[in-house]
Amino acid sequence: MKSKGLLNTSVRHVEILKVSENRSATFLDDVSVEEPLEIRILYHDGIARINKNISVTMRTPGNDSELAAGFLFTEGIISAYGQIKNIENPQSECSVSSKNIVTVELHDDFVPKLMNAERNFYTTSSCGVCGKGSIDSIRTVSSFQNRKKEDQNIRLDVIYDLSEKLRSFQNNFSATGGIHASGLFDSAGNLLALREDVGRHNALDKLIGYALSSNLLPLNDHILLLSGRASFELIQKAAMAGITVVAAIGAPSSLAVDLAKEFDITLFGFLRGNRFNIYNMGNHFKIENLL
Amino acid sequence: MKSKGLLNTSVRHVEILKVSENRSATFLDDVSVEEPLEIRILYHDGIARINKNISVTMRTPGNDSELAAGFLFTEGIISAYGQIKNIENPQSECSVSSKNIVTVELHDDFVPKLMNAERNFYTTSSCGVCGKGSIDSIRTVSSFQNRKKEDQNIRLDVIYDLSEKLRSFQNNFSATGGIHASGLFDSAGNLLALREDVGRHNALDKLIGYALSSNLLPLNDHILLLSGRASFELIQKAAMAGITVVAAIGAPSSLAVDLAKEFDITLFGFLRGNRFNIYNMGNHFKIENLL
Repeated sequence: MKSKGLLNTSVRHVEILKVSENRSATFLDDVSVEEPLEIRILYHDGIARINKNISVTMRTPGNDSELAAGFLFTEGIISAYGQIKNIENPQSECSVSSKNIVTVELHDDFVPKLMNAERNFYTTSSCGVCGKGSIDSIRTVSSFQNRKKEDQNIRLDVIYDLSEKLRSFQNNFSATGGIHASGLFDSAGNLLALREDVGRHNALDKLIGYALSSNLLPLNDHILLLSGRASFELIQKAAMAGITVVAAIGAPSSLAVDLAKEFDITLFGFLRGNRFNIYNMGNHFKIENLL
Repeated sequence: MKSKGLLNTSVRHVEILKVSENRSATFLDDVSVEEPLEIRILYHDGIARINKNISVTMRTPGNDSELAAGFLFTEGIISAYGQIKNIENPQSECSVSSKNIVTVELHDDFVPKLMNAERNFYTTSSCGVCGKGSIDSIRTVSSFQNRKKEDQNIRLDVIYDLSEKLRSFQNNFSATGGIHASGLFDSAGNLLALREDVGRHNALDKLIGYALSSNLLPLNDHILLLSGRASFELIQKAAMAGITVVAAIGAPSSLAVDLAKEFDITLFGFLRGNRFNIYNMGNHFKIENLL
């Protein structure tokens, strides 16, 4: 029902019938755009140049280069932005298909860790397929895991203000009511970046891709705010980026809580106005003014 | 904060700090359990018996056999429940890892369509990677696609009552506030089955696995109710099961709307009490009492 002056490829107008109390009427509604994105890498394996498909994800168009870089980083395939030589993301309006392919070209002296991409699930851990095995497999590839942590103090009112700040900056949510967001704040509560996507994991990969390209990692003096629930996958990505505080508007899962404890990540859930739950309090984290 | 007398492997108690207005206190909270499940198939390829890993998904334990059967069906790897000889899902409490593996043994005379599992994204369509290609690729494997549809009439009050019915039956949501549900209703609004999971696609695969094993497919005189948003993946699974009406409490994505139009699926969104939006009205569908 809202329209924007700017071209917005993240939102599409569709004609709907709105039903309320026995009556229906035609409206123009906004829905979040969902389209597949193919992420490819171009690298040299010592013998030949290889152009390889890494993943296809259903995403909301926008910030596709960040999404590709963030995905490769959180999957452990690359470990630094400097390993990337070029990101090609054709934006030609005349070719729908090429718009949905991002090719990340790596420097010739870097060999991507493709085995890491399989790590989430196929571990050789004696535990086999279980939550513990999943957590162990992340420990082996997170480059910030053994870094000494600094003390981090955050004021209570900074936490209380987060959800309202996210909402006020979330453009597409207000239009469509159906898109996830990941927001990056500094410890004083200033919003540094916000990314939106129909897939919560994509919104976070875009945000981490932005932070990676801006040389902000590890994000150990920041707060990551998630618009929805906190699952294993999101805490895993946060751990890969060295994030020390994760706040979710929704509920965490059991494995998200386990992973937060294991990686010493402070985890808040059900953050709504002046209320929230602390599922894990990091060893170097303190909330000021909390009784 | 709630506890149940029955053993519930879908919910876990965790100790949390509850913060409200400058004060914190310790509570026992319930979180939804998230654990990996490995789905394997055991089949005969004409030469030898093969035991193959098909997928690992992060799911909430419970109805794992339905999840495995539903997943194999919605991915097009099997097309009938009769192709399954046996489903092995060890429930031994002493072995965490084996509980998280389901092996679906197929009859010797059936060769699984493993190529179909790749269909979602890797299509040879001239359109390449785009929404249209994704939709085309489903058309090739949905066995109910070309079936002649019967007329389906649903009373408006039946639709209005759906969201409240889902909520009142959703056990784990009220405990954890963080789990998705898929509910199957008949055209008169009677709840036939409800499945819950931290992953929305898993909740739907469990429900379709139940319907498959109960010989209810195609679900062309039913209503599928989704507790959250409707994405491409969910409408795809609905199409595979021959579902003709999908109602979502949340928003649909653009590709979900496209797919619903293409497959003649009636799609409602933002179903909340006596209001909802109609994103697509099926050719053989009618709402009684709607002005």
